[in-house]
Amino acid sequence: MEASMTITCPTTDVERYPMYIGTGILSRAQEAVPESYRGFRPFLITDRNLVDHGHAAKIGTDPASTFVIDPPGEDAKNVRTVTAILNVLDEKGFGRDTLIIALGGGTVGDIAGFVASAFKRGVPVLQIPTTTVAQSDSSIGGKAGVNSDWSKNAIGTFWNPCAILMDVETLKTLDERHYVAGLAESLKHGLIADPAFVEYIETHTDAIKRREDDKLIELAKRNCHIKGTVVERDPYERIGLRFILNFGHTIGHAIETATTFRTLHGESIAIGMLGALHLGAAMNITPVDLFGHTETILRGLALPVRLPEGIDPARLAELMRRDKKAKEGRVRFVFLSEIGRVYVKNSDFAHTANREMIIDACRAIQA
Amino acid sequence: MEASMTITCPTTDVERYPMYIGTGILSRAQEAVPESYRGFRPFLITDRNLVDHGHAAKIGTDPASTFVIDPPGEDAKNVRTVTAILNVLDEKGFGRDTLIIALGGGTVGDIAGFVASAFKRGVPVLQIPTTTVAQSDSSIGGKAGVNSDWSKNAIGTFWNPCAILMDVETLKTLDERHYVAGLAESLKHGLIADPAFVEYIETHTDAIKRREDDKLIELAKRNCHIKGTVVERDPYERIGLRFILNFGHTIGHAIETATTFRTLHGESIAIGMLGALHLGAAMNITPVDLFGHTETILRGLALPVRLPEGIDPARLAELMRRDKKAKEGRVRFVFLSEIGRVYVKNSDFAHTANREMIIDACRAIQA
Repeated sequence: MEASMTITCPTTDVERYPMYIGTGILSRAQEAVPESYRGFRPFLITDRNLVDHGHAAKIGTDPASTFVIDPPGEDAKNVRTVTAILNVLDEKGFGRDTLIIALGGGTVGDIAGFVASAFKRGVPVLQIPTTTVAQSDSSIGGKAGVNSDWSKNAIGTFWNPCAILMDVETLKTLDERHYVAGLAESLKHGLIADPAFVEYIETHTDAIKRREDDKLIELAKRNCHIKGTVVERDPYERIGLRFILNFGHTIGHAIETATTFRTLHGESIAIGMLGALHLGAAMNITPVDLFGHTETILRGLALPVRLPEGIDPARLAELMRRDKKAKEGRVRFVFLSEIGRVYVKNSDFAHTANREMIIDACRAIQA
Repeated sequence: MEASMTITCPTTDVERYPMYIGTGILSRAQEAVPESYRGFRPFLITDRNLVDHGHAAKIGTDPASTFVIDPPGEDAKNVRTVTAILNVLDEKGFGRDTLIIALGGGTVGDIAGFVASAFKRGVPVLQIPTTTVAQSDSSIGGKAGVNSDWSKNAIGTFWNPCAILMDVETLKTLDERHYVAGLAESLKHGLIADPAFVEYIETHTDAIKRREDDKLIELAKRNCHIKGTVVERDPYERIGLRFILNFGHTIGHAIETATTFRTLHGESIAIGMLGALHLGAAMNITPVDLFGHTETILRGLALPVRLPEGIDPARLAELMRRDKKAKEGRVRFVFLSEIGRVYVKNSDFAHTANREMIIDACRAIQA
C-alpha cells in the first residue's frame, strides 16, 4: 500500500537533568528544580518510613499536597496505588503545572515516576531516592512502572526526572539489612565498568559499613557516573548496552520470584552475580578466580553469597526461562571477561547458556 | 546548589509514521505496519460495534488476541478498562514485541494508545480510526488517555502510532447522528486553516451526507493534512500552536459537561464554534457575517446550531472556568480573524474574554 502522507514528529528537546549529591540537603530540595518548573505546584509522594524518620517534613510541602504510601514496600507497587494518587491529584484540582516530588526508595520512585508520566499527559518529577538501591540504581535512567498481578514492572513508561537529589543522610535511617542489600548494586557497577571502584569498595569496606559521610557521597557519585554513562548511551534500551546493568540479575530475579521477594533485590543480585561468574567461568569466558574474589568482597559487606535454603536449581532455571528479559524462551546472561569489563560477542552484551550449565551454576551457589 | 553531574538523554529518533487512506483496505491493515515491527505479535483492541458490523474480523487477528470493549462508548474510557486490558496482555504472556492494533472510534483509540504506551514501557500501536471524529481528529497527534472520576483525559500520555490506517468503509456503518457529528471537526479544520476546504464542504454537502466514497476519502485526506501539519509543528503542545485545534472547544467542552455527554463531542463543537464566532465578533476580532455563514453550513450538514434546552449560560461560563485548559481560572478561546485564519496576538493563539461577554455569546446560541 502507498501511504497518503507521513507525519514527522520531532521529539522533545534532548532531555538533560542535573543530579545533586550531598549531605543534609533535603531541606533545600526545591532548589534542585530547574528554572522552567519553579512556579509549578509541588505534590509530594513518599511513604510511611520517610515520614516516621522525619525526612518528609524537610521537603516543606503542604501536608494537603502529600500522598503517603502506607504500608510501604513492593506490595504497594501496583495499578491501584497509581490510580489512587492520580485521583487525589485530580480531585484536588492539580493541573499541568504540577511538580511531582518523589521521596523514597525504588518503590516510591517507580510509582511516582509513572504517576508523573501519566498525569495530564506528563508532568515533571523531582526524584529524591533515599535508599542504597535507589541512589545507586533505580532513580537514574527514567524507568518508571508498577507490577501487574502476573509480572514485575509490566506496566510502566520511560519518564526522565527533571532533576535527581540524593541526600546521604537518608541512608543513615535505613535498617542494616536494607542498607547492606543496596551495596550489591554498587559492587555490580564496579564489576561491569570500573576496577578502581571495586578496589575502593574493598579498601573501605568497614567505613562504608559504618556509613561515613564521605564514603557514602563517593559511592553515590561513582554509581551515578557509571549508571548515568550507560543510560546516556542507551536511554531506551535500543542498542542493548543498557542490558549490561543486568549483570547478576538473570539469576537474581529468579531468586526474588522463588522466595516471593523475601530475599531483597540487592541480596538476590549478590547471589546472582556469583552464579553468573560461575557460569561464565564454566563457559571459559570469565577468569576462574573472580568467583572467589567477589565472594570475599560480598562476605565483607555482609551480603549473602548462597541461595536461601530449599531452592531447587531446576526450578530457578525454569523461572529464568519465563522472565520477560528472556527472548523466545532463551535465557540471557551478562558475563564478565575480567573485573570491570563485560564480555561482548558479535556486538552483543547478552548471551545464552545451555540449561544444564545454568543448573550447575545454581548448584555452585546452593547453601 | 551545584549539580554533581548532568545526565543528557538523547531522545528517541524523530518519529515518523505513515498514514494510509482508502476504501476496503481493512483486510490489508497489517501491511501498514512498518518493517521494524512486522514480526511483532498483534493484539487487537476494538469494541462491540466493530465486531457486530463485521469490521473486526477483517483484521485477521487471532480471537484469543483480541479485547472487545463492551458496552462501547465514553463510559469505558477509564483506568479500569486500561487495567483490564493490561492484565489480559500480561496474563497471556505478551511481551515487548507486542503490536497493539486499535480498531474503533476515539474511545478505542484513546484506550488502546494509552495501553500501548504503558505496557512494558511502551509497545507500538497501529491506529485504525473508524468514525468521522476519530478519522478527522483524535487518531492523529499521539494523544492517548482516559477520564478520571473528576475530569476528561486526566490520565494519559503522548504516544505516537507506528502507522494510521483509515478505511472509509467503516464510516458507512455509523448511525446517522454519529456520522454527522464528526463532520463538525472537518468544518473546524477548514475554518481555522483552509478556506478552500470550507468551500469544498459547502459545495458537496449532499454528497458528503450520502457518504460517497470519493468525498469521504477527500475529507479524510484534507483533515489529516491540516491536523498533521499542526501536530508536526507542535507535537507536545509546547509552543501553543496546537491550541488552535481547540476552536469551538472552550464552549463545546462545557456543553458536553453540562449535558453529561448526551450532546456528542462533534455536536457540542458545532454549537461551540458558533459561540466563539459570536464572541469574536463582539470583540471586533471576527467578521460579523461569519456566524451566519457557518450556521448555514452546519444546518446543511444537519448539525445542531443551538444549545440543548435548559442550559444556563452562566453555568456554562462557570464550567469553562473550571476546564483544564483554563489558565489560573481565565477562560481561553481561539478566535478567527477570517475564514481559514486564526487570530494571533503577541504570538499567542489563545485569548481571554470577560465573563459578561462570554455569557452574552452563550445567550446568542440559546435555543
